[in-house]
Amino acid sequence: APDPSGVDGQGEGLKQRFHRVRQDSMSITALLHAEDCVIQSMPDASPIRWHLAHTTWFFETFLLKPLAGYQPVNEAFEYLFNSYYNSVGAQFPRHRRGLLSRPTMKSVFEYRQQVDAAVIDWLSRQELTAEQREILEVGLHHEQQHQELMLTDVKHLLSCNPIFPAMFDHPVADQASPASVEWVGFEGGVRRIGHDGNGFAYDNESPRHKVYVHPFRIQSRPVSNREYLAFIQDGGYRRPEHWLSAGWAAVQEGDWQHPLYWCRREAEWHEFTLGGLRRLDPAAPACHLSYFEADAYARWSGHRLPTEAEWEIASQAAAPEQILKGANRFVDSGRPVHPEYDPTDTAALRELFGCLWQWTSSQYSPYPGYSAPEGALGEYNGKFMCNQFVLRGSSCATSANHARRTYRNFFPPEARWQFTGVRLASDGAE
Amino acid sequence: APDPSGVDGQGEGLKQRFHRVRQDSMSITALLHAEDCVIQSMPDASPIRWHLAHTTWFFETFLLKPLAGYQPVNEAFEYLFNSYYNSVGAQFPRHRRGLLSRPTMKSVFEYRQQVDAAVIDWLSRQELTAEQREILEVGLHHEQQHQELMLTDVKHLLSCNPIFPAMFDHPVADQASPASVEWVGFEGGVRRIGHDGNGFAYDNESPRHKVYVHPFRIQSRPVSNREYLAFIQDGGYRRPEHWLSAGWAAVQEGDWQHPLYWCRREAEWHEFTLGGLRRLDPAAPACHLSYFEADAYARWSGHRLPTEAEWEIASQAAAPEQILKGANRFVDSGRPVHPEYDPTDTAALRELFGCLWQWTSSQYSPYPGYSAPEGALGEYNGKFMCNQFVLRGSSCATSANHARRTYRNFFPPEARWQFTGVRLASDGAE
Amino acid sequence: APDPSGVDGQGEGLKQRFHRVRQDSMSITALLHAEDCVIQSMPDASPIRWHLAHTTWFFETFLLKPLAGYQPVNEAFEYLFNSYYNSVGAQFPRHRRGLLSRPTMKSVFEYRQQVDAAVIDWLSRQELTAEQREILEVGLHHEQQHQELMLTDVKHLLSCNPIFPAMFDHPVADQASPASVEWVGFEGGVRRIGHDGNGFAYDNESPRHKVYVHPFRIQSRPVSNREYLAFIQDGGYRRPEHWLSAGWAAVQEGDWQHPLYWCRREAEWHEFTLGGLRRLDPAAPACHLSYFEADAYARWSGHRLPTEAEWEIASQAAAPEQILKGANRFVDSGRPVHPEYDPTDTAALRELFGCLWQWTSSQYSPYPGYSAPEGALGEYNGKFMCNQFVLRGSSCATSANHARRTYRNFFPPEARWQFTGVRLASDGAE
Amino acid sequence: APDPSGVDGQGEGLKQRFHRVRQDSMSITALLHAEDCVIQSMPDASPIRWHLAHTTWFFETFLLKPLAGYQPVNEAFEYLFNSYYNSVGAQFPRHRRGLLSRPTMKSVFEYRQQVDAAVIDWLSRQELTAEQREILEVGLHHEQQHQELMLTDVKHLLSCNPIFPAMFDHPVADQASPASVEWVGFEGGVRRIGHDGNGFAYDNESPRHKVYVHPFRIQSRPVSNREYLAFIQDGGYRRPEHWLSAGWAAVQEGDWQHPLYWCRREAEWHEFTLGGLRRLDPAAPACHLSYFEADAYARWSGHRLPTEAEWEIASQAAAPEQILKGANRFVDSGRPVHPEYDPTDTAALRELFGCLWQWTSSQYSPYPGYSAPEGALGEYNGKFMCNQFVLRGSSCATSANHARRTYRNFFPPEARWQFTGVRLASDGAE
Ligand SMILES: [Fe+3]
Ligand SMILES: [Fe+3]
Ligand SMILES: [Fe+3]
Ligand SMILES: [Fe+3]
Repeated sequence: APDPSGVDGQGEGLKQRFHRVRQDSMSITALLHAEDCVIQSMPDASPIRWHLAHTTWFFETFLLKPLAGYQPVNEAFEYLFNSYYNSVGAQFPRHRRGLLSRPTMKSVFEYRQQVDAAVIDWLSRQELTAEQREILEVGLHHEQQHQELMLTDVKHLLSCNPIFPAMFDHPVADQASPASVEWVGFEGGVRRIGHDGNGFAYDNESPRHKVYVHPFRIQSRPVSNREYLAFIQDGGYRRPEHWLSAGWAAVQEGDWQHPLYWCRREAEWHEFTLGGLRRLDPAAPACHLSYFEADAYARWSGHRLPTEAEWEIASQAAAPEQILKGANRFVDSGRPVHPEYDPTDTAALRELFGCLWQWTSSQYSPYPGYSAPEGALGEYNGKFMCNQFVLRGSSCATSANHARRTYRNFFPPEARWQFTGVRLASDGAE
Repeated sequence: APDPSGVDGQGEGLKQRFHRVRQDSMSITALLHAEDCVIQSMPDASPIRWHLAHTTWFFETFLLKPLAGYQPVNEAFEYLFNSYYNSVGAQFPRHRRGLLSRPTMKSVFEYRQQVDAAVIDWLSRQELTAEQREILEVGLHHEQQHQELMLTDVKHLLSCNPIFPAMFDHPVADQASPASVEWVGFEGGVRRIGHDGNGFAYDNESPRHKVYVHPFRIQSRPVSNREYLAFIQDGGYRRPEHWLSAGWAAVQEGDWQHPLYWCRREAEWHEFTLGGLRRLDPAAPACHLSYFEADAYARWSGHRLPTEAEWEIASQAAAPEQILKGANRFVDSGRPVHPEYDPTDTAALRELFGCLWQWTSSQYSPYPGYSAPEGALGEYNGKFMCNQFVLRGSSCATSANHARRTYRNFFPPEARWQFTGVRLASDGAE
Repeated sequence: APDPSGVDGQGEGLKQRFHRVRQDSMSITALLHAEDCVIQSMPDASPIRWHLAHTTWFFETFLLKPLAGYQPVNEAFEYLFNSYYNSVGAQFPRHRRGLLSRPTMKSVFEYRQQVDAAVIDWLSRQELTAEQREILEVGLHHEQQHQELMLTDVKHLLSCNPIFPAMFDHPVADQASPASVEWVGFEGGVRRIGHDGNGFAYDNESPRHKVYVHPFRIQSRPVSNREYLAFIQDGGYRRPEHWLSAGWAAVQEGDWQHPLYWCRREAEWHEFTLGGLRRLDPAAPACHLSYFEADAYARWSGHRLPTEAEWEIASQAAAPEQILKGANRFVDSGRPVHPEYDPTDTAALRELFGCLWQWTSSQYSPYPGYSAPEGALGEYNGKFMCNQFVLRGSSCATSANHARRTYRNFFPPEARWQFTGVRLASDGAE
Repeated sequence: APDPSGVDGQGEGLKQRFHRVRQDSMSITALLHAEDCVIQSMPDASPIRWHLAHTTWFFETFLLKPLAGYQPVNEAFEYLFNSYYNSVGAQFPRHRRGLLSRPTMKSVFEYRQQVDAAVIDWLSRQELTAEQREILEVGLHHEQQHQELMLTDVKHLLSCNPIFPAMFDHPVADQASPASVEWVGFEGGVRRIGHDGNGFAYDNESPRHKVYVHPFRIQSRPVSNREYLAFIQDGGYRRPEHWLSAGWAAVQEGDWQHPLYWCRREAEWHEFTLGGLRRLDPAAPACHLSYFEADAYARWSGHRLPTEAEWEIASQAAAPEQILKGANRFVDSGRPVHPEYDPTDTAALRELFGCLWQWTSSQYSPYPGYSAPEGALGEYNGKFMCNQFVLRGSSCATSANHARRTYRNFFPPEARWQFTGVRLASDGAE
């Protein structure tokens, strides 16, 4: 994939890109109060302040600390803002991140400024080795991943408040009804998937390798709220026959009766959005579904979820401009981050990117021949290959230039707070 | 007890007192950042922002809402800031108070200002009924209670942070060694305890009633760190024979090896204080002990804790100026809130007030003839008479004019985050 | 109290009594299958097999092991069947007692026989010292306490089974309606309570001491199912104003809507008994109430629970034959153990003993001047004086000669599986 | 696979096979006491008595109840002994199976006899439909699966007892050192896996389908205790770099320092076996490993686990007599069930069957084109395809004629109480 910054290589272009990605985190933060930035609403989520510091720690730890003479900004941060890198050292426990009222936001902003200045200074002074360039790239993509998490984590936090505060000033607008859904067919046979080495990719997307796929069909767009409501109205959440055993346990323990951010108010369905609580829009894509819900919906509908190989093969025809869609629209537009169908898109497969992550039926496993890189960055992806399902595409909260056809996102099957939905598949005619 | 505001009655004096008590909460808050004010570090503690809003809700709910034509500031606050008054309505769950990032501090300050203005306006315009006067008194004492909790709750929060932030700029100073401890004896017989109806008291201090006490002795001052260290060094935390069964379970489950805020650094004992981490001062009073620790220490020492009747009888000789000691010293002095012995006090019994709360061996039960008042304020005290032990006196974090000889503070036996310590007693010669 | 075995002293009489008490445990066991005897239905309960072995361990540990030349039956039992005596050594964790399928019942029966033979042999061969006599007494009372627990623990176990197995062949019979309830008044003043040293008593009943009581009235009999139903029908379990705060939390967490063993079947109230499930008998005493329920019922009724001093003073007029009532009736009668009113009793206060334990409002605390005995037996009672309420009297499951006016039974306020009920009290006219 | 009973088809042969399989469950039980048969040692395990009744319920529910005029033995059993078939009805909660002391073993034996008689009677009277034949087959394989669980569940129960009771009279014998380990290579390409429809198989083994495999090598035998000890001695359980993130969490939360049934006694490694505690035999296969341990060991060794496709392809050369190895040897031999290497086997790949289940790196997912059967039996396998890893082969506790090359066993990655071990694989030369 071409460097979306428009400047391929080192020097000024890279500095500009570094500056822009770092600034995007601050733009998200500018929409919030200090009070919103320190609370941890559940063990899976982290405070905004932690994201801001941790992404900075990442650059400091992997880029700056190896440089001769570099003096860390604050020794305590090594422990406080290490997420899960055992190779670097011990970590302040994840589920206690919300117990830290200090360093204050102001101190974290200063930390960011100091590290940014050091990186920019260093970029100005010398050529990067290939390894340094690679780490800088990982650091930028890492920060973009965390920007999406900042949005999903703060959405979860705000949703816990019975007064349903909005992050954005404007409410989420009504959508036009989506085009009717179509099936797109693909032939079976030996195909290749995985990253081809052109442009940036995470280690878990390699090696590119052969797979055998059977003929399959896949739907032209994700399932809508209106379609998902039919599942609810048919008793979807009360009939165990649609659910995986662990999914049914989650339904019962969590008393699930609808997607995470839905609620009924005065006999009408509402949905909490980053623009506040609104009446549910039946024309919008169904979002914040767990794998369990996606899988149950698919079984109820008589179809199934695609495998990640099927999804990737189907996406191989996507045009580059389709992939770039997710472009942090809120930064420019002031419109709340929320999934929508794009009525102007006329491709056979739409909303592959920039709308919502699509659950696949594939559990997250290493590709044949995969091995994690040496060193701390080898902990980035490989050690999570267990009890997670792969999601493909990208969402309305994903930075545009962070998306790729080969991207393997992953979450546990009960996770619901990401922008996640369903695109159906089925076996094709032989 | 005389009104410590110096003005007994309604009108200007009461307005001034209302203003001063309300201002004290803001003075505490002024020493903190917004980030410190929204986090809940454990289910027993509440965020500062919640204390600020709840104490305001108390005046609004019990004084203003009954007034004709009063318009509540925000309907949502009735639910959000009700602590435990079922008679008023449902409550946002206590253990989730730390999930609320909104209303922001700024909004809560405005809430306080609006309610303060309405109360002052109302006080200026009319005579208070006896019941209104009583509610206003309860509201002021209630806010003073919460001021102590603000200090203990934020101390707990800051203690969870491995960088040990200080609330006060100055560290806690070394103390001079306390006077040697003496025993003071009291005769047995039928005595009276409980509030006599002069001045303000909570319902649980009544009715004044007869008790039969056996001869007893009580120590002249609370146990010091140096004395408590001897217990630790004698294996106090490793020997079940000193402990109640439930206390020994707490020691093992919580891996207790020392008082809550103590830790060892480089082979030396340290203590976390509101002025930051410091070397343990052996000359200071031993503080932040649970009932279990207080009781185990007493058993190890060959003595026991006093009953609450014994403590109250012993305190009956205390002079009014001894009682006024706890005068929120930090507000005027800038010195961190921390318990200390008063070297200038020459009374037989010292540090009854203004140093640390003293555990009694009395489980918190109703006095003979007690019945809770009608209405919501009947929920203030009576419904907690179960699985709590009575503490007597007052602490360095107690407002001076909040203390009384008959005051019955109470906490569960495992609670350690209050300013609590030990004054020993023993059976006297018949 | 006179020795209820009819033989006061050592020698043959003591042997007979030892034999009878030990045999009673076997008689209870004879009504059960091996399958009933190894399961632990909740952490508070123990398997029958554990009770059988632990009571044997008690005699072996405290009586036999100190004897010169005694060889323990099985070294492993010291650890497996020690309940909570830290002075003796470590204990197999209480909540894991149900994980032991071995030693089998057969092995435990053999263990009992070996220890019984050794005790009888020793009793035949020599005079007991006063201390040995005291230990033997404690051991016999200890076993009687465990006999009551065997009945309550197996009742709980059987109640967990949806087929509601009966322990006794015959169902619980209908009762005649109890006499109407009367109030009996007592004057206030300085009174004496506690054991006077004649006959056996536990350490926690001493020393006998003076207390000041206010005038009070107490009801002639415990509350009936019919009376308790009125509380339920008045929304008792749905109205927080009747409950202690911790009680209301228990109601909500446990979804309490009625006493422990009640259930509704086809629109009618039923009760699980040791004779199986039966329609609720409104004429029977209300049983298996927690302190929380007893206290809420009392508040709802406009009265209160008695203090333990009031209860003991009221019981001082009870005749010896009233106290002997609980006499393990099932052993002789084959009738299921179940609380009943005695229609033949014409005393002013009835069912003080032999029906159900009566909650008092007194939290379990040491008497003035109490100190636990030296050595392991000092762990018997004193270390539980925390978060428990005192119950007085005795129940249908108590051995007759185990009951005393000064007996202090104690359980946490949420405990419901004992035979526990309510006798109301109120303040008397001055 | 040919019918291992030697009689292919209906009539007498099938009756004999039914009788033999049913009898095997009783033979296992005969080695235990009633006390061993009712306790549930952890939520994942079930009491022996439950297994005996549930397997009987299976035949009664799916074979007998559909027959005209059949009268169920006991209505309550439908609820009590249904494991997880929502289509049949509600189920007594799995984690409470250990709360049932009734029906007694005797009653369950009678239940078995009644159902057995009804099945035999029915088999004698009429021809089976294809569907009935299929259900009977499933029922027999189902019971064989539970026989293995009976052995693993009772092993877990006995291991919780500090006296380490043995199920078998004889201890586990020392083994001869295994042959040195060899690598066996396989070419890549499109291959077929899954059941071909000849003989019995579960639904999850179908459809037979094409997969693309890359060249790979696999080891000739499972890892031994001696080899696994080297991992421990190299700090395997203390170094997070070998572990999946969730595995490292399991190590820390469970304080794992060695395989489940290992312990150190007097400075020597011991292992709990069904023949009691014994010194660890370094020559025996390493057993009772979780997926996490298997995976960490593989990573530490520089290799990896095989995928299930690789394992199945490798097994395609296995001779029928190799597959039949696991033949419930204890029934005939009296030797404790325990994994061993077969020194007489000279095949290239040994211990594929009859020793221990071998973890694969494949998460348990549906085969392409798989759909669960209609009706209750559709719940047998498909609904568990989440958060489980596939194991291949069979173990020393597996009935010989229960094993197949295409068999897909599955357990969560933290499960350790099955007879599970490691066979290593690695990428082959292209
Ligand atoms: Fe990160
Ligand atoms: Fe309050
Ligand atoms: Fe005991
Ligand atoms: Fe089954």
